[in-house]
Amino acid sequence: MASLSDSLTQARARVEAVLDQALPDATLAPERLHEAMRYAALAPGKRLRPFLVYQAGLLFDAIDTDLDSPACAVEMIHAYSLIHDDLPAMDDDDLRRGQPTCHRAFDESTAILAGDALQTLAFQRIAETGPANAERRIRMIATLAEAVGSRGMAGGQALDLGAVRHRIDVTELETMHRHKTGALILASLRLGSLGAVDGPDADQHSALDHYGQCIGLAFQVQDDILDVTGDSRDTGKARGADARREKPTYPGLMGLEASQRFARHLRDEAIQAMETFGPRADTLRSLADYIISRER
Amino acid sequence: MASLSDSLTQARARVEAVLDQALPDATLAPERLHEAMRYAALAPGKRLRPFLVYQAGLLFDAIDTDLDSPACAVEMIHAYSLIHDDLPAMDDDDLRRGQPTCHRAFDESTAILAGDALQTLAFQRIAETGPANAERRIRMIATLAEAVGSRGMAGGQALDLGAVRHRIDVTELETMHRHKTGALILASLRLGSLGAVDGPDADQHSALDHYGQCIGLAFQVQDDILDVTGDSRDTGKARGADARREKPTYPGLMGLEASQRFARHLRDEAIQAMETFGPRADTLRSLADYIISRER
Repeated sequence: MASLSDSLTQARARVEAVLDQALPDATLAPERLHEAMRYAALAPGKRLRPFLVYQAGLLFDAIDTDLDSPACAVEMIHAYSLIHDDLPAMDDDDLRRGQPTCHRAFDESTAILAGDALQTLAFQRIAETGPANAERRIRMIATLAEAVGSRGMAGGQALDLGAVRHRIDVTELETMHRHKTGALILASLRLGSLGAVDGPDADQHSALDHYGQCIGLAFQVQDDILDVTGDSRDTGKARGADARREKPTYPGLMGLEASQRFARHLRDEAIQAMETFGPRADTLRSLADYIISRER
Repeated sequence: MASLSDSLTQARARVEAVLDQALPDATLAPERLHEAMRYAALAPGKRLRPFLVYQAGLLFDAIDTDLDSPACAVEMIHAYSLIHDDLPAMDDDDLRRGQPTCHRAFDESTAILAGDALQTLAFQRIAETGPANAERRIRMIATLAEAVGSRGMAGGQALDLGAVRHRIDVTELETMHRHKTGALILASLRLGSLGAVDGPDADQHSALDHYGQCIGLAFQVQDDILDVTGDSRDTGKARGADARREKPTYPGLMGLEASQRFARHLRDEAIQAMETFGPRADTLRSLADYIISRER
């Protein structure tokens, strides 16, 4: 059994090689746009979503080559969403992962287009290089699109923008996160399972979804906690940035200690959900623990 | 044989009904985002791209219900591109088709997200409701994505932004248009042919592509001509707007008369390309003529 850290490193190396090959070369016209796409998609990152694709695939004996295109696609979607979220009209962020945001490193119009084109490329990648079975590619694309559109990630960002400077309660905060980040995390797991010839039965499908919902939310709760307690050298952003921006956060709504208890509860639920998969879900169990203990 | 005008009206009514049903209801959360998506996608328009899907399908005996999802998808992509092109960081337009642009009617962040979500929905629509044959859906998605991404439409917009206030020649102008608008027009025709069980042979494929290239470019040349000669009540934008913005145009680069000759030449080439399809391409032939004689 590889350690979580080894598995993360392995998946990261694998998907970064796939991304590097899938992204248009920066010497191809329009060069500046391609440079911006590569800058954003290849910026250092945890590659959590691709990791979930590979790990969920492992539960159902999917072969890695059938997982490469969905793994690459979810990271492209993630990169696109970060570019657009950082724009002046949205969160107006100058730094992302310790580096200038895309519109800072390039310009605003290039950043908008780079996000647009990364979204397109995500769907194109699955359509062109997904599993040989066309039916499975289609299900992957439909699953990804549902998670990414107005009823998923983009809708969550709309709710998030609407929530700034408004009083919202914990339920509304959870709804926002479930859409904004939860949907793509859930989709990553589902895409992994769709990479397998024999996918999950109904119970396994529910278990995987429940795991995804718990770690997705736990990730956000921990992010909010780190905004209060974290070291900006680790998190790559100024401490208290969310609070200053009047963004609703878990510590802000329920207090720091209750947020930490909530995060641990979500971790326990996630680990519990993986019981049905036995030892081959060990890495996903470790991940649930890592998500709420990470310092960046 | 229905007249061009009747055919256009029929296709417009058909795709607008499909769009209305495919777009999330404005009463669904997040309401404002869904309102903006509907505002942009259902704004009055020629629905030229869906029309091309239906007409190309007709050449190969595709059934209309297999064409509805690609017809809807190309219009959603078109609407997304208009929203993003109009943004302050791009062309910074206040009016589109005589109505306030999306970011003017709503706000900038909602407009960015509405464009993003319309792109997603386009791919989702084909994946979920395209032809029964999964292989054909996949080919439709791959074809559309190729036309829309950084090597197609988004890349063309990047070239366009780079061209403002720079001296470019006619060849570069054509390259820009071939990407920015030509690629989606070509894809619309290809998607129509992919809606058929028996698609085009290699010669027919080339003929259709050549037709698409010619009318796509003719459309732009005529747009540039109308910017000089048009009535703003017809075109929905101020006369001379492109010139004032220092955008390169055909009349600006080759003069008005040469531009009009070039438009007629493109029309003739397009009509010529349709010869192989006999009388069932009559409507597409009429379209080529309409494109360069329209006043709006």
